[in-house]
Amino acid sequence: MITTDICIIGAGPVGLFAVFEAGLLKMRCHLIDALPQVGGQLSEIYPQKPIYDIPGYPEVKAQELVDNLMQQIAPFHPTFSLGERVDGLRKQDDGSYHVITSDGTVVHCQVVVIAGGLGSFEPRKPEIAGLEQFEGKGVSYMVKHPEQLRDKRVILAGGGDSALDWTLYLTDIAREVTLIHRGESFRGAPDSAEKVVELANEGRINLILQSNITSLHGNGHLKEVTITAKDKTVTSLPADYLIPLFGLTPKLGPIADWGLSIDKSAIEVNTHDYSTNVERIYAIGDINTYPGKLKLILCGFHEAALMCQSAFRYVYPSQKLSFKYTTVNGVHAF
Amino acid sequence: MITTDICIIGAGPVGLFAVFEAGLLKMRCHLIDALPQVGGQLSEIYPQKPIYDIPGYPEVKAQELVDNLMQQIAPFHPTFSLGERVDGLRKQDDGSYHVITSDGTVVHCQVVVIAGGLGSFEPRKPEIAGLEQFEGKGVSYMVKHPEQLRDKRVILAGGGDSALDWTLYLTDIAREVTLIHRGESFRGAPDSAEKVVELANEGRINLILQSNITSLHGNGHLKEVTITAKDKTVTSLPADYLIPLFGLTPKLGPIADWGLSIDKSAIEVNTHDYSTNVERIYAIGDINTYPGKLKLILCGFHEAALMCQSAFRYVYPSQKLSFKYTTVNGVHAF
Repeated sequence: MITTDICIIGAGPVGLFAVFEAGLLKMRCHLIDALPQVGGQLSEIYPQKPIYDIPGYPEVKAQELVDNLMQQIAPFHPTFSLGERVDGLRKQDDGSYHVITSDGTVVHCQVVVIAGGLGSFEPRKPEIAGLEQFEGKGVSYMVKHPEQLRDKRVILAGGGDSALDWTLYLTDIAREVTLIHRGESFRGAPDSAEKVVELANEGRINLILQSNITSLHGNGHLKEVTITAKDKTVTSLPADYLIPLFGLTPKLGPIADWGLSIDKSAIEVNTHDYSTNVERIYAIGDINTYPGKLKLILCGFHEAALMCQSAFRYVYPSQKLSFKYTTVNGVHAF
Repeated sequence: MITTDICIIGAGPVGLFAVFEAGLLKMRCHLIDALPQVGGQLSEIYPQKPIYDIPGYPEVKAQELVDNLMQQIAPFHPTFSLGERVDGLRKQDDGSYHVITSDGTVVHCQVVVIAGGLGSFEPRKPEIAGLEQFEGKGVSYMVKHPEQLRDKRVILAGGGDSALDWTLYLTDIAREVTLIHRGESFRGAPDSAEKVVELANEGRINLILQSNITSLHGNGHLKEVTITAKDKTVTSLPADYLIPLFGLTPKLGPIADWGLSIDKSAIEVNTHDYSTNVERIYAIGDINTYPGKLKLILCGFHEAALMCQSAFRYVYPSQKLSFKYTTVNGVHAF
């Protein structure tokens, strides 16, 4: 069991900065993130993209901002559980919480701060009969280990870059690659689309357009895929693996079941301290909502600062908070 | 007359960043500041001091942050009236405002944003009978032009660094320098205090300790100063100039008379958009107050962003605001 003062769910820029504000008040933080690295969307989706609206930075690359934040919070030695999803929350008799992750990690904390951005990103699932039944038994929403697919019959579905790129990549690995796309043209890069069409013309892959996968069949493991074309023609294809690649979609996940007041996938908070309707649980950054809310990183920074002033009472119930300026007092590591 | 969309009173870090957020929404800004340069306290009081709590900056010198903010807002070409105090505010028939400065500058704007920090800094005035009557007629709270004091009889009052430093500086310029201090020892640098005592021992200046100036006399211009010692002895000294140097004190100034709801020298705002009780007048940064308020620069940045979303309705009453991310759309100069 990990013991800390504040358990922060989400290690994006706002969750990271909360460590700094907490540290100024001598509160320790443990962060949990479903992604394998810190930085949230900034590191996962657009690390090399410039951001223009971080105050004091005319321009900063997303990853550079994350790196700077990590340096800023280093004096307070935050700890991390990365690549783990938050699964459960258990209130203890003394008011503190146990936060439990998908890997079974238990974090004992006085305060829970949800800094989950747009939620954890989950693969968008197509509507196919039997899909969930074959998850982990031939159906996978991402390619983690391409070698697993060597000499197998692999069906990919989708029309974006992921579908095109993996089709190209797997052609030399899998025994047979089929790309199924409901449309006629691709949303992905024209260059990649062209190469895919070329491979199909050379007979090196199967390209099935204007068609949807409608059902899956097998005995314990995927064996066959049924495809229905726009003209209603139904065909079947043998398959060892099916990889639907329809992008990621943000989800609140298990947090949605914690009794929090939620409005359109966002957690309602008050603007005094960004606390939720559940005592000792706060929500900061893109995941919260209140009148006037703007989903900007700079707003999350402000929310983190006010949240920490409020959370202090749970971590140090017998102490009076004395507010000190870093320009006067500096930053005292612990 | 200067015409703009938003008139920002105060060119400190928060006022400067408001230009950026306004610019993203195509609103132009004019800034007024009593100080002769931008940056507020950062540039005036502690330009070389490191700040540790600007998100994304493990450490940044105050002046460096100001310089970076100026670079960040450059695409939106803000205009400035520096070294001018805001004197008056006149509501126009169409709801817009004229903001009038101490120098007679008139700024016509749709929205007024008070980003005045702790207020404008005014000299702390000692209680001396007749003091204000001789202001500009021998009494001055700062030494702007030392040459004006050449061959004059100058009395300085105070016990801090300013009083000591100006005493040392003026010894070679004025005909006669007297330093009056209510205490027995000085708050200023020991080194400077020692030099002042040395000059007094050499008979080059008059040093009068444990005494207060109690009244001023003259005929149109200062001529004589009455001094009361702690032991009640009363003496008089001829004087051409009196320079009380008791530090600066923040003052709301004329803004206090605008009908704004004020609590302990801070302007009350709501947290939806940081608007005041007077339509089209907003207050952001250290000068405002609301439940949970923290006087941090990073909070002022957030307030500036939400304020601009609200101010938009007055600048573009017939347009719908569409919120765009700079990471997607970039920054479009005008």
